[in-house]
Amino acid sequence: MTESDLAVVQLTPGRWGDPTHRAEVPPAALAALQQLGVHRPPPSAEPVDRPGPTEAQLAFLTAVVGVEHVATDLAARWAHTRGYSTPDLLRHRSGDTTGMPDAVVFPGSHDEILQLLAGCAERDLAVVPYSGGTSVVGGLAASRRFVTVVDLRRLDQLVELDEISRTATLQAGVRGPAAEALLAARGYTLGHFPQSYEGASIGGYAAARSSGQASAGYGRFDQMVVGLTLATPRGTVQLGRAPMSAAGPDLRQLVLGSEGAFGVITSVVVRVRPRPTERHFEGWRFESFDAALTAVRRLAQDGPLPTVLRLSDEAETAVNHPAYAGSALVIIGFDGPYQPGTAAVLTEAGGQSLGAEVGDAWRTGRYQAPYLRDPLLDEGALVETLETATFWSRIPALKAEVTEALVKSLSDQGTPPLVMCHVSHVYETGASLYFTVVCAQHDRPVEQWQTAKQQASQAIAAAGGTISHHHGVGADHRAAYAAEIGPLGVAALQAVKDVLDPDGILNPGILI
Amino acid sequence: MTESDLAVVQLTPGRWGDPTHRAEVPPAALAALQQLGVHRPPPSAEPVDRPGPTEAQLAFLTAVVGVEHVATDLAARWAHTRGYSTPDLLRHRSGDTTGMPDAVVFPGSHDEILQLLAGCAERDLAVVPYSGGTSVVGGLAASRRFVTVVDLRRLDQLVELDEISRTATLQAGVRGPAAEALLAARGYTLGHFPQSYEGASIGGYAAARSSGQASAGYGRFDQMVVGLTLATPRGTVQLGRAPMSAAGPDLRQLVLGSEGAFGVITSVVVRVRPRPTERHFEGWRFESFDAALTAVRRLAQDGPLPTVLRLSDEAETAVNHPAYAGSALVIIGFDGPYQPGTAAVLTEAGGQSLGAEVGDAWRTGRYQAPYLRDPLLDEGALVETLETATFWSRIPALKAEVTEALVKSLSDQGTPPLVMCHVSHVYETGASLYFTVVCAQHDRPVEQWQTAKQQASQAIAAAGGTISHHHGVGADHRAAYAAEIGPLGVAALQAVKDVLDPDGILNPGILI
Repeated sequence: MTESDLAVVQLTPGRWGDPTHRAEVPPAALAALQQLGVHRPPPSAEPVDRPGPTEAQLAFLTAVVGVEHVATDLAARWAHTRGYSTPDLLRHRSGDTTGMPDAVVFPGSHDEILQLLAGCAERDLAVVPYSGGTSVVGGLAASRRFVTVVDLRRLDQLVELDEISRTATLQAGVRGPAAEALLAARGYTLGHFPQSYEGASIGGYAAARSSGQASAGYGRFDQMVVGLTLATPRGTVQLGRAPMSAAGPDLRQLVLGSEGAFGVITSVVVRVRPRPTERHFEGWRFESFDAALTAVRRLAQDGPLPTVLRLSDEAETAVNHPAYAGSALVIIGFDGPYQPGTAAVLTEAGGQSLGAEVGDAWRTGRYQAPYLRDPLLDEGALVETLETATFWSRIPALKAEVTEALVKSLSDQGTPPLVMCHVSHVYETGASLYFTVVCAQHDRPVEQWQTAKQQASQAIAAAGGTISHHHGVGADHRAAYAAEIGPLGVAALQAVKDVLDPDGILNPGILI
Repeated sequence: MTESDLAVVQLTPGRWGDPTHRAEVPPAALAALQQLGVHRPPPSAEPVDRPGPTEAQLAFLTAVVGVEHVATDLAARWAHTRGYSTPDLLRHRSGDTTGMPDAVVFPGSHDEILQLLAGCAERDLAVVPYSGGTSVVGGLAASRRFVTVVDLRRLDQLVELDEISRTATLQAGVRGPAAEALLAARGYTLGHFPQSYEGASIGGYAAARSSGQASAGYGRFDQMVVGLTLATPRGTVQLGRAPMSAAGPDLRQLVLGSEGAFGVITSVVVRVRPRPTERHFEGWRFESFDAALTAVRRLAQDGPLPTVLRLSDEAETAVNHPAYAGSALVIIGFDGPYQPGTAAVLTEAGGQSLGAEVGDAWRTGRYQAPYLRDPLLDEGALVETLETATFWSRIPALKAEVTEALVKSLSDQGTPPLVMCHVSHVYETGASLYFTVVCAQHDRPVEQWQTAKQQASQAIAAAGGTISHHHGVGADHRAAYAAEIGPLGVAALQAVKDVLDPDGILNPGILI
């Protein structure tokens, strides 16, 4: 049946990450949570099953992928319900089966996916493409039934490595660590290390325009992709004959970010690089976020540009690096030789080196933060993140206004929050801002967060930021996204969708 | 009437470039042309006028832009007929008025363009957006009448310079040299130097995905654009709240390369950089194109990456640098300090430095080559270029197969050609190939070239290249482009066009 497939699941449904890694809330943090008025919420509820597919539907699915690659049991369907936003986790805890798919299929090839899509279109069955399942913006919550989740985990191959061109063809279901392992065996790296690295997959990176922690050096995922293959209900789209082209609009950039609404990305051709033989990470301390921002901007605009460049504001520094409370902490990292000019730029801007220890501590702990969210939720804390990006000149106002909106909205609800912020992706013309919010859950925590999120999103728009730098649109940002690209932008995307997915079966309710 | 507008025309209709700069074919080249069987063609014919707009049409156009900004005289319309491909020039010489617009208007603002487009849609009048007019792929040849050319030269302002974010908002009609002058006055540069620099404009750079000679250092134009404003018959599209975003597909990359078929790009926000205070250009000589290709690839993949990096094959080197005949010449150039590691990479790959003289000679002469085309056509030579790009591993085969196709097709027509090639744009994963072809004109030179071009285009597709790296699609590459993106890709673009331009008035016959 499905046991063999599910055995490869690395993630626990409704809880982040590798189940063998569990985090506990440090005692000092627990004390701080008390200050925020946190108290334990009611215990989790179990989901109640409901009918799955009809016999005819099941017959169709099994005919395409084989009976051993279709799952209709509650465990499999529950494990494919929603993603990993805090509202998603809270709904999971309450046993809410809204959005639970009726069936999960595990196709083994691009051609099987083409057949699935054509057949689902014929039968008016909604399809949710699923690779890592790590969406934090409601990217996996199809708005109608019958819903088939197409789980891409069997598409797990490195299809081709072109060592002259330094390109790799990777199938969509390859998880981050598996991609690195496959490439490392040949001496290469992709260099894409988002915080979702342990769970997310190549197809999701592409579909949601992922950006990794080393984006300063390796670029965003959408900058790594030079080719891709898309399965749609109407057939295959194959793009990318050259790194760059003037042959019309760049249609790769139309598929990247399409979040499963145009088709299922089944493989991508990505730029790879030789694995670095050395690494250098360092911490730097600045008097204030503003001073550090100038330093970081200088590196982003005039170099030397580290592979990793991030800046935590005073609030985040106080929580994550209490030894440096009162400062703003900058982490720089080089995959490859240390660029000596860096220290001069940081020193001139008022920075003080904290040496390699702080940098290495960040590097080794960089995938740990999401693990803390579940135990924090267990304790009754509401913890969530949101992010944006804009041009450098707008960054200070954007940061202040989003922080103010979050503080005001949550305080108005009786749960004053702690709001922390960091810059983790830089460009010559601007940067991202990533906010982490912690407060006490009130009795309807999903609505509590939605209210705060809406206020923050309005502040982002008013300050000229984009609604997402690297999380994507999903269902959660759909309205803000529509405002961002305007009615003609939405109409253009809808027109593309109508061509590729005329029956509207693909990820309905997501993106547009 | 139109005199004042036309006074700012810098280019001579039907002849490339600044009329005060005239080139002559060197005697040695004339001798070589004899070898190719070149003889003088018949003299040019004058165009015969034909009726322009009706009174009602003229009344509408003048109501929007003012009578002094509408031109219907033969000179103005002839000057806006077609672009600068060799077939375009040959048709011009024969007095062929096919594709001559009925009127030329010079709007002064985005709002006037919105009004023009809405009104033209209402009246079913085709519109050709015109900024520099330098298309070499038939990008200005609307396939139906009545045709209004919207000339953007009055949109010539630097609207805003954000020195913190290092972005500049430039209107679409700003020519290359004017953009540099406006930015230089503030200490900045765009760094975009295509061979069409003297004639082409910001709007055209964006609409046709231009790439300049310094693309290794400054990037392509589509990589410089962080925001843009598009006027369509249905209203305005405004894009770009951040350098990069995960809020859906990158719609900027859907407008870039749309070649006037989706709307008129009226302004762009581009990344700018401080003007360099020093420059270093050098020539290097290699035993063969293949040896030099390895060296160039090494720099593109592992650095140091010069601002300018180009490689002429043996045939091009023999013509342009006869002193080094038998070698393949590489030009490297740095805007800013010389990167000392470069020489080691080139030397290790078998290169021999020729010093600054060859590099500086290339730099000072870099806009001169197109001026030679007109006197060569006068002598009866057929001279034209075409270009492509692909991944590094395919470059040698692509070069060989395109060369073979050109030689075979033109030899079969009784006019054996000289085919030269260079690499002028490099990426980590691949590069461009630019071919220059010279042979004798036969008595129907347009058809002669079309036959050869079609064979070359088929060879490009068969070898896995894109139909254009930086010239664009226009009318000339439409069929090859359709094959490149496939029927679903074409349908998706047509759907976007149908949303933005439901009456199909914008650049009909161009792109799709």
